[in-house]
Amino acid sequence: MSLLVVGSVAIDSIETPGESRERILGGSATYFSYSASFFTPVKLVGVVGEDFPPEHVELLRGRGIDTSGLHVVKGGKTFFWKGKYQPNMNDRETLEVQLNVFGNFRPTLPEAFRRSEFIFLANGSPVTQMSVLEQATGPRLVVADTMDLWIREQHEPLMALFKRIDGLVMNDSEAKLLTGDENLVTAGHKVLKMGPRFVVIKKGEHGAMFFSQHETYVLPAYPTERVVDPTGAGDSFAGGMMGYLAAAGNFEPRTLKEAMAYGILVASYNVEDFSLERLKQIDRSHLDQRMERYRKMLSF
Amino acid sequence: MSLLVVGSVAIDSIETPGESRERILGGSATYFSYSASFFTPVKLVGVVGEDFPPEHVELLRGRGIDTSGLHVVKGGKTFFWKGKYQPNMNDRETLEVQLNVFGNFRPTLPEAFRRSEFIFLANGSPVTQMSVLEQATGPRLVVADTMDLWIREQHEPLMALFKRIDGLVMNDSEAKLLTGDENLVTAGHKVLKMGPRFVVIKKGEHGAMFFSQHETYVLPAYPTERVVDPTGAGDSFAGGMMGYLAAAGNFEPRTLKEAMAYGILVASYNVEDFSLERLKQIDRSHLDQRMERYRKMLSF
Repeated sequence: MSLLVVGSVAIDSIETPGESRERILGGSATYFSYSASFFTPVKLVGVVGEDFPPEHVELLRGRGIDTSGLHVVKGGKTFFWKGKYQPNMNDRETLEVQLNVFGNFRPTLPEAFRRSEFIFLANGSPVTQMSVLEQATGPRLVVADTMDLWIREQHEPLMALFKRIDGLVMNDSEAKLLTGDENLVTAGHKVLKMGPRFVVIKKGEHGAMFFSQHETYVLPAYPTERVVDPTGAGDSFAGGMMGYLAAAGNFEPRTLKEAMAYGILVASYNVEDFSLERLKQIDRSHLDQRMERYRKMLSF
Repeated sequence: MSLLVVGSVAIDSIETPGESRERILGGSATYFSYSASFFTPVKLVGVVGEDFPPEHVELLRGRGIDTSGLHVVKGGKTFFWKGKYQPNMNDRETLEVQLNVFGNFRPTLPEAFRRSEFIFLANGSPVTQMSVLEQATGPRLVVADTMDLWIREQHEPLMALFKRIDGLVMNDSEAKLLTGDENLVTAGHKVLKMGPRFVVIKKGEHGAMFFSQHETYVLPAYPTERVVDPTGAGDSFAGGMMGYLAAAGNFEPRTLKEAMAYGILVASYNVEDFSLERLKQIDRSHLDQRMERYRKMLSF
């Protein structure tokens, strides 16, 4: 079934303890759509400036990603983020942010995108995310991401959004911030009461937790030594998960758990290099092989 | 098969964000032996002072724990630890330590304990741990715990110990300290090269990782909302693991993974109350029921 993502498309400069990269392709909708494209075609809505290298658009198109909703602002500059990772590769510091054209992003869904059945609302304010929902016609599954900024500064619009979405994906630190609870199991259940039918809490190198009315579970991250750049891990996870769900065409508990696992595995590849570099080297068969090892790891 | 533990038996005073307790039963060998006793009889070697309440000894004896190796020093005082947990229930601060009789602990294995087939060397300096090994006759499996203090201050005796043991159990922070590596997968492999045939890295609320020459895997913690006091979680884990192995009488890869899982589940109960309070309320059937849910959680 059709999958739509609305979010940021960006240029990143990244410093890690090992290496650095200047002006590479990034953004939540970028990582999400590429990751989902292992499973299903994707429709992308975002905004970039005239400075955005056309080869990036070609890369996405080559993966079956419909970029007709990627608005190019004439004379504008693309969202730019510069960050630095600490030696633990988990904590990061933002060195520079230039919102540029993303600061005025008012997403408009092309007519052909409005009937998308699976929708992912990536990085964006809850007001922007809600405006997307209002343009959509009868989606079957809407999942949103959120972040500390919106939890701190846009509490009411966020609460209104939570009542309209099916699933919410957030970081462990964001779940603690939102609920004031340090125990992630308690925090997950509290977020569930705010509206979403299911909540996924991402724990970075420790995997992800799932909460619904009937189920609570944790899946560990796939153990990898090669953590080069964690940027986009959360969006790759979401992309793998939503891509798998859209391809399956349902979101039964069993499908959701498989989708979580695929999300974890796409993210495990994503962190093995900068930008989309590692994902560009693999195909679905790599994911299926890693899935086999992952299932084996968790069975005893 | 017979299981021996040598370690601390202590009196703890504990402050958590929720509640506090004064002078309750603690110590690595205490948590270990009680946890192992769900699976197999245990022989305990440790030392206490004359102030040690006899009901604690009765409690252990009632679980099939042979306390004939628990030395009572006349006129001596029991090892005392006072600690305070931060709101995240993970980081803790030591407020007071009185080594007392444990400071001069030179464990002597009773004749009947020397032929123990499974041995766990709990909290103690590597020199003390080695002295235990030298008294043992042909053990089949020796597993040791270690801690930051010995990594910092007794590197050489620790390295000598690593060459004599089969398995090593340590915290994530200790693995990073020992190897200087922030990636736990890399750290685990580095520790493996120091001698042990397998290494277990405990990640607290995030579960545990296993490393051997042929296998690397992660098992998540069992998700629980009721984290009252994490003290002894690591020793309960080790006790559940070693107890299960000794009962099975082998340490094949498959048995080791099941043992890891049981260790995780005993620890998940242990943290639900202070001291041994929660473990005192359960029996093997509770562990088996939780195991069924745990297996289900990890299958998809």
